[in-house]
Amino acid sequence: MGQCNCHKKRKDSQELTDVERAIEIVINNFQRYAVKGRKECLTPNELRELVVQQLPHLSQHVCSLDEKIECLGDPDEAKLEFGEYWAIIGEAAKGCRVKK
Amino acid sequence: MGQCNCHKKRKDSQELTDVERAIEIVINNFQRYAVKGRKECLTPNELRELVVQQLPHLSQHVCSLDEKIECLGDPDEAKLEFGEYWAIIGEAAKGCRVKK
Repeated sequence: MGQCNCHKKRKDSQELTDVERAIEIVINNFQRYAVKGRKECLTPNELRELVVQQLPHLSQHVCSLDEKIECLGDPDEAKLEFGEYWAIIGEAAKGCRVKK
Repeated sequence: MGQCNCHKKRKDSQELTDVERAIEIVINNFQRYAVKGRKECLTPNELRELVVQQLPHLSQHVCSLDEKIECLGDPDEAKLEFGEYWAIIGEAAKGCRVKK
């Protein structure tokens, strides 16, 4: 319960591809840190913890990630949905990708 | 060249985390299919090829993915930047995550 549905699919179908497995890891990472309040949302503090523990290199490349988290609202009360988490990681990934 | 910069980082620092490696896989997948025209963009046809070959389970879960690709413009000429690719995958991942 609360796991990516692709996981279920794997058991009764062929293996996920490398890219699908990678996406599943990013999804499960969200769910792992979304413990306070609604399970389907992250607080800014949970996101910060996630970034510090799971994205140390990505956050080094994208200096503004920390500032972005500051702007997300009350650190323990604001609720970030999966789409917002995905967008923040995407911006960081984009910065990482284009940086030479 | 054209590789995620995190890759370079790995050589002179500690190992990437599982989540960072996963993000790197999703980034490199974009670059692998962005062969026509500008290397930093995908055409809708390239995106379709990517989805068929790399995201077979994800696209099964999200029926509208194929329709979305239809709406992206000229199949061989429209240029999708990394952020658009990331957003499309995110929507699919979101659908996959919430589907029970």
